[in-house]
Amino acid sequence: MSFVYNADPERGQEWERQFALHAPDMAFHHWPAYEDPAKVRYLGTWAPINDLERFNNLEVIFSLGAGVDQFDLDAIPRHVPLVRMQEPGIVATMQEYVAMAVLGLHRDLLSYIAQQRESVWKTRRVRPASQRCVGILGLGQLGAAVAQHLVRLGFNCRGWSRTPRELPGVQCYAGEEALADFLAGCDILVCLLPLTDHTRGILNAELFAQLPHGASLVNVGRGAHLIDHDLLSALESGQLSAAVLDVFAPEPPPAEHPLWQHPRVLLTPHVASMTQPESAVMMLLDNIARHQAGREMVGVIDRQRGY
Amino acid sequence: MSFVYNADPERGQEWERQFALHAPDMAFHHWPAYEDPAKVRYLGTWAPINDLERFNNLEVIFSLGAGVDQFDLDAIPRHVPLVRMQEPGIVATMQEYVAMAVLGLHRDLLSYIAQQRESVWKTRRVRPASQRCVGILGLGQLGAAVAQHLVRLGFNCRGWSRTPRELPGVQCYAGEEALADFLAGCDILVCLLPLTDHTRGILNAELFAQLPHGASLVNVGRGAHLIDHDLLSALESGQLSAAVLDVFAPEPPPAEHPLWQHPRVLLTPHVASMTQPESAVMMLLDNIARHQAGREMVGVIDRQRGY
Repeated sequence: MSFVYNADPERGQEWERQFALHAPDMAFHHWPAYEDPAKVRYLGTWAPINDLERFNNLEVIFSLGAGVDQFDLDAIPRHVPLVRMQEPGIVATMQEYVAMAVLGLHRDLLSYIAQQRESVWKTRRVRPASQRCVGILGLGQLGAAVAQHLVRLGFNCRGWSRTPRELPGVQCYAGEEALADFLAGCDILVCLLPLTDHTRGILNAELFAQLPHGASLVNVGRGAHLIDHDLLSALESGQLSAAVLDVFAPEPPPAEHPLWQHPRVLLTPHVASMTQPESAVMMLLDNIARHQAGREMVGVIDRQRGY
Repeated sequence: MSFVYNADPERGQEWERQFALHAPDMAFHHWPAYEDPAKVRYLGTWAPINDLERFNNLEVIFSLGAGVDQFDLDAIPRHVPLVRMQEPGIVATMQEYVAMAVLGLHRDLLSYIAQQRESVWKTRRVRPASQRCVGILGLGQLGAAVAQHLVRLGFNCRGWSRTPRELPGVQCYAGEEALADFLAGCDILVCLLPLTDHTRGILNAELFAQLPHGASLVNVGRGAHLIDHDLLSALESGQLSAAVLDVFAPEPPPAEHPLWQHPRVLLTPHVASMTQPESAVMMLLDNIARHQAGREMVGVIDRQRGY
């Protein structure tokens, strides 16, 4: 019985140590050195893997990130559940990144970065977070945790989700028909939606036009949520004042892509949240124990919804 | 009986509106249009004012910022108290700025800004805030509030002050003899000290050498706390990895100063915290009422300590 790890090799060393500590009876292999495919029961992978049929005793595929849009669900045998990573390290690091991005937009950080390059000393009026409204698109595990964190930081916070949610201190909107009302009050919009056929390209000109003039954007969902050209136009017209982007389609964006050198865009290389080996291995082993006991695992993907 | 306002003219309009609303009987003048100096009872000023003797009925000088180091205490008549601004807007905006700066240093923001300029996509390992220790130099009203805010953000937090303090969730150190122990554990050091003869130049090579190698710095105290040359040397050697600076001596730094274009320095133009007219006027009017009733005002400067 073995577990095969297929992601960043450096962090893989820590995964192996954690497995040795907490599941010494489970053979641990680094992809592609899995030896006998018939012995592979569990796959932990960031990227999709072709030809899964060779693993004829495969029981579960664990995505090692919060999203699963990189996987073609039809290519995964029907009897093999796909489980996404829900561990506290992903949540905590996402909360921190969005807090940094939102505070940066709230406090005109992109203006100050641009001014510094020109040796310009010019102050801009400071208002407290209590006078700023942040809207979260998507109130799943990450969106809900981020919204709560922003409330703790003193921001007014609202959230939108496909199905109704309730969160303390967060004004919640649900469904297509509530989207316009939600958007009309967002000084800063944060995208934390899953990527599905419903949400692909949702960050487009039509949506930007429904935000207050001069609003700003944080995209920590997926690159394919955003129509790059529409963002550039909105920044050009002033409808949007700035954007912090951590995800792109494709990643990395080509070197000549205008986002790289845009003075109103802060670009980071898909580092908003990162699975933390210590807590991730504990979650994964717990799920394996649940699976072996015939209990429901945490984070199993609904093949209909796609998340 | 009149109040004279001497600071940013744009915000002065809001001050005048707030006075009209909450103290309609008090004449409000914008410096230098104070008419009869004998009628001036209260001065609200950011900068020092010369020849205060002309205001022979002056009762109180209110500093419109949190610090008072810009004033020469000996030039203020002994019977006129100097009161610093302690209002919730200053505290909230300082908490927000330091949160932004600390999260930025914690998450390698300066590296990503530099990479973006070169169109470089390179991820750096993410660790959660719970694995990072932030140290606050100075646990006055601002330092204590900032420390509490960083605890809420999940950071390990320690603080140092001249006299012993206790703060929930913050490891407190006091006095010269505890400074080395305090510094040895600070991944990120935040300066929120008052500027006095004891603290001038405290951010120097000797102090930097006591921090862990690769630590980073946030200066939101005063420019004169920092020896610029020692910071540049520490960044050069790698003893410090980065700095976020909001204050300088002088302000602005000369255009050719190496801090402006330094890739490991984020520079902002003294905007970390800003007095908010609405709440500041309420605090100031409350102090005037206390003064008129013979009660103690909030924020009176101790001429011996200098803060």
